[in-house]
Amino acid sequence: MHYFSDNATPVCPAVMAAIQAADVADHGYDGDAWSARLDSAFSALFDAPVRAMWVASGTAANSIALACLCPPYGGIICHEEAHVVVDECGAPGFFTHGASLMTLPGDGAKLSPDSVAERLKAIRPDVHQVPASAISITNATEYGLSYTPDEVAALGDLARAHGLGLHMDGARFANAVAYHGFHPADVTWRAGVDILSFGCVKNGGMMGEALLFFGAQADARFAEAARWRKRSGHLFSKGRYLAAQLLAMVEGDLWLANARAANAAAQALAGAVPDRLMHPVQANELFIRLSAVEAAALRAQGFDFYDWGDGAARLVTNWSHDAAAVAPLAMALRSLPG
Amino acid sequence: MHYFSDNATPVCPAVMAAIQAADVADHGYDGDAWSARLDSAFSALFDAPVRAMWVASGTAANSIALACLCPPYGGIICHEEAHVVVDECGAPGFFTHGASLMTLPGDGAKLSPDSVAERLKAIRPDVHQVPASAISITNATEYGLSYTPDEVAALGDLARAHGLGLHMDGARFANAVAYHGFHPADVTWRAGVDILSFGCVKNGGMMGEALLFFGAQADARFAEAARWRKRSGHLFSKGRYLAAQLLAMVEGDLWLANARAANAAAQALAGAVPDRLMHPVQANELFIRLSAVEAAALRAQGFDFYDWGDGAARLVTNWSHDAAAVAPLAMALRSLPG
Amino acid sequence: MHYFSDNATPVCPAVMAAIQAADVADHGYDGDAWSARLDSAFSALFDAPVRAMWVASGTAANSIALACLCPPYGGIICHEEAHVVVDECGAPGFFTHGASLMTLPGDGAKLSPDSVAERLKAIRPDVHQVPASAISITNATEYGLSYTPDEVAALGDLARAHGLGLHMDGARFANAVAYHGFHPADVTWRAGVDILSFGCVKNGGMMGEALLFFGAQADARFAEAARWRKRSGHLFSKGRYLAAQLLAMVEGDLWLANARAANAAAQALAGAVPDRLMHPVQANELFIRLSAVEAAALRAQGFDFYDWGDGAARLVTNWSHDAAAVAPLAMALRSLPG
Amino acid sequence: MHYFSDNATPVCPAVMAAIQAADVADHGYDGDAWSARLDSAFSALFDAPVRAMWVASGTAANSIALACLCPPYGGIICHEEAHVVVDECGAPGFFTHGASLMTLPGDGAKLSPDSVAERLKAIRPDVHQVPASAISITNATEYGLSYTPDEVAALGDLARAHGLGLHMDGARFANAVAYHGFHPADVTWRAGVDILSFGCVKNGGMMGEALLFFGAQADARFAEAARWRKRSGHLFSKGRYLAAQLLAMVEGDLWLANARAANAAAQALAGAVPDRLMHPVQANELFIRLSAVEAAALRAQGFDFYDWGDGAARLVTNWSHDAAAVAPLAMALRSLPG
Repeated sequence: MHYFSDNATPVCPAVMAAIQAADVADHGYDGDAWSARLDSAFSALFDAPVRAMWVASGTAANSIALACLCPPYGGIICHEEAHVVVDECGAPGFFTHGASLMTLPGDGAKLSPDSVAERLKAIRPDVHQVPASAISITNATEYGLSYTPDEVAALGDLARAHGLGLHMDGARFANAVAYHGFHPADVTWRAGVDILSFGCVKNGGMMGEALLFFGAQADARFAEAARWRKRSGHLFSKGRYLAAQLLAMVEGDLWLANARAANAAAQALAGAVPDRLMHPVQANELFIRLSAVEAAALRAQGFDFYDWGDGAARLVTNWSHDAAAVAPLAMALRSLPG
Repeated sequence: MHYFSDNATPVCPAVMAAIQAADVADHGYDGDAWSARLDSAFSALFDAPVRAMWVASGTAANSIALACLCPPYGGIICHEEAHVVVDECGAPGFFTHGASLMTLPGDGAKLSPDSVAERLKAIRPDVHQVPASAISITNATEYGLSYTPDEVAALGDLARAHGLGLHMDGARFANAVAYHGFHPADVTWRAGVDILSFGCVKNGGMMGEALLFFGAQADARFAEAARWRKRSGHLFSKGRYLAAQLLAMVEGDLWLANARAANAAAQALAGAVPDRLMHPVQANELFIRLSAVEAAALRAQGFDFYDWGDGAARLVTNWSHDAAAVAPLAMALRSLPG
Repeated sequence: MHYFSDNATPVCPAVMAAIQAADVADHGYDGDAWSARLDSAFSALFDAPVRAMWVASGTAANSIALACLCPPYGGIICHEEAHVVVDECGAPGFFTHGASLMTLPGDGAKLSPDSVAERLKAIRPDVHQVPASAISITNATEYGLSYTPDEVAALGDLARAHGLGLHMDGARFANAVAYHGFHPADVTWRAGVDILSFGCVKNGGMMGEALLFFGAQADARFAEAARWRKRSGHLFSKGRYLAAQLLAMVEGDLWLANARAANAAAQALAGAVPDRLMHPVQANELFIRLSAVEAAALRAQGFDFYDWGDGAARLVTNWSHDAAAVAPLAMALRSLPG
Repeated sequence: MHYFSDNATPVCPAVMAAIQAADVADHGYDGDAWSARLDSAFSALFDAPVRAMWVASGTAANSIALACLCPPYGGIICHEEAHVVVDECGAPGFFTHGASLMTLPGDGAKLSPDSVAERLKAIRPDVHQVPASAISITNATEYGLSYTPDEVAALGDLARAHGLGLHMDGARFANAVAYHGFHPADVTWRAGVDILSFGCVKNGGMMGEALLFFGAQADARFAEAARWRKRSGHLFSKGRYLAAQLLAMVEGDLWLANARAANAAAQALAGAVPDRLMHPVQANELFIRLSAVEAAALRAQGFDFYDWGDGAARLVTNWSHDAAAVAPLAMALRSLPG
């Protein structure tokens, strides 16, 4: 049974059904009936006027967002282990035409306002140094932690005070919202987020994420993002198949239901190995201490997952899981001699 | 009934079935079983070792190909009405980091070896002028003409003689091959083509084209293209759903069957209006002289299509058509007073 | 005696003296006393508030100007034989991160408002096509023609009506102004020019041109240009040696005196071969019909110049010339049997 | 008396004389007699075949070098306080089209082979992570330390073993060589350096550095660099004035004589405040502990320099100094109460 990535899981049935329902003739690109509903669907979800755009992948969503917030000579403050830094082959550098990633350490891949403030203070305001233009955070983080609205708002305040844009990589946004139970608006635009990469693929979609623009500059940024989307080859000619997936997720509460299932499974596993946890479990990922011998023992029982350096492993649950489904792994973990 | 674009047509049933068959757990990105079969499937089709990569859109396929063939300070010789020039919002400039499109005129959007040779001769070999690095042609062309193997080979010879790469935009490659009946190898690698954007979406796919690398540099270019694909956000996390579409197209002869249907429909329409044709019909597009009054009359009967400047229109047939399906439009065209 | 380029000529004595006068200790980059005087010197010259920046080369000046006026996904309308198109190895593509050069034909390398208007009309306002963002003209043109204020204003009106920026490549701006005798303001900001590359090197300088920003957006564009200048390696650490050259040119009327000398020399030559002229002579360049035999005959007498394709030649006069200096060449031209 | 930067110092007389000697008519760009001598002059100096190119600024030299060694999707390992990281407004990102700077800590701004090796080991060889493509070091470093040949060779061995290019930013290369007394070849190509930015401006030049290419790939990289130089606006039309400066530096031993003078002055100052030194003094820069009160006291005596954060200052000596010239500052430093 695979726990190496939520990308490995099939598409959830409601999304597949939506794809098939969209299998009719309609206008190309984003001129179709499904794409036309995105703004209203996400505005309803976020309780505010939202401009919403389908984008094929999380990397494209993040990169286009950053290109809207940062000029080529600017910098993006982010965590040193952020996906945009370590897992996108430099995509932000490509889309921004060479902007700098200004990386910071921080527990659990979270950015702290103090470290951001200190970094900002160190930048000389002359033409020789790269000015900071944006802050990018991941929620849930790369280590499965979820920001509270207050934590985001502290960064949002800093961003506003320094004239920076604030981007949130929400590849697992649903899991973060489901964990805390806050309203999605509280942890985004109400806390100062300008652009959100709203993830769907890891949460049961086939392909396609939503790029959401909040606030007074939403229209202008959306228009610019539309150029980047086309120019980067991401304006698909049959966009209705993407839009339909997003609508299936958010016109009901599928996005939250799926995330809750994955989170519940993660909690069930966490409960089995409280002493092994390297980070709090606040989404659908667990990072646990696990020796090579233990890892081999689990794999021998059919459980698959990634090692995370020496003596550690990452387990990822997904929408198709629930506490029962992961019970065998929970038991196997409990039964480890260590 | 719509004739404005082959993008407007639904996915063909065999492709949809393939997508559903791929709806199982497997490794992410291109680590799945379907992606693993691409090289062999296309090698069989092209009767030669081919490196094949799924890419989400035609724009991405073309741009990544050009980035593999042309440095930022180089130039790409292409037709002034090529898709890469007029319909991709500058995507080649984005992916190549600013290479120049060296545009040439030519009947039916075809490049002639003479005009290419003349253009090459005009470039001074000093550091002030942009050197030509690649030639890009579209087959079938933007006006629905299809290159013969000899025509491609004449350009291929020029390319080789001047050390240029040769790219073919094959968004409607299937229609071109189906029209002439040549072996796909004859009009590509045997004629000097280095990289082919092999189109699927217009031919019945949902999303995803194949980028095919031929010849001695195929491996090196594939490796570089893999970086561009990731860096541009086109390495989808659930790539199996793309790979499955491509395999459904080419592991049988669906790609040709679909193209033949579209071509037959185009010929049926062409036969109805021989005197209105602005270009020979050698694929699935017709460009016809049509007054505004005539266009309105057709639309009143339920036929939809794009105007093509003043006094002209474009009609595009697709995989779901055949001669019978387009009979009503053929009759309506014949019945126009003019 | 060389007539192949005004680049080949030594620095004029007043500029060399200014360089030596600047050979004292002062702050680095543009923090020195000379750089601080640029704004006021050029504001006086242009009779309006001007933001002025030294830049090392004409290519850098042009490219930075275009990067301030055109986003990566935009287009720049210019003549197909403009320096930015044919002689800068794609520098505008580099500085703009891949913007498109939208080239137009036109007699004497001049852009006509009609052809620009027609080009603008042909662009669909959708996301697939590159929108025009700027117009760039060269004055004097690559064929030695000079725009009148009315001609520039017609382009300026078009630019304003379509929301485009207007750039003037003034590598030989002094020659153009000297020829017509208009006030420099009349042919620039009063006619709608936003940014001017004010040439010095061809006019007797050693290195360094001035980039001039006019109008309401001058400050914002200057600030952005300052980033591009630094980022492209053009913010020299001892900028005072560049600034001093520019001031020597424009704090008196050296720039005009030099240009008048070169122009007078060109007129003297033109008067010798009225029937050979391929273009009106309105600056310091002559393009004349000249057979290979005739060219050889002139070279045998010690005159050096560039061939300009078959049966033609380019002769360039410079600041160190006057009518007397070019009398030997004038006589040799008159004496040609043809 | 100024100690804030070696950029503030006038040009040394021999360089100014060389500029004036070059003030004759010659071919433009790098077609002149001075530019033609660069290869042989630097080959003699480095005791090996060297391809040498003038470039206007250190930022341009570094960036062009990195663009020759690193693709857009690659990474450059360098110190976190390197000039390319903190003082060039992201120029390497501009010239490389978005390559990543992979920064490492290290005493005195030196890179240690161990930290580089560890960084290399952490990069997964998949398409998601940016591969390392080059190492860039500064010699003398930003804190005035000079690498020994053995230290460079250890990095050169690592570079070769991993297929990386090795670049040396030698803005103060002369000071480094003068300090250790090694042959310039020992600390460059014999130790594995592929490209050297050979600094002249800080060492008494007006403008212009030399970009030097060593080894088997020198010709190919030079050819590519020539494109970048043109494309970035750095191919000046009167290049002879730059080439002449470089030749004046290295056809005799002016470059070393100037550096020795600056170094001697630095040692004289260091000897005055051994307990205040924050780094060993191995070139022409001193970083000393200095309270705000002490700094004010020195400035009141007419000594100018930059603060270096709280409680510290940077003093830079230059070619016009010697031990006698800095004696007043040495005495003032000794006389500080602290």
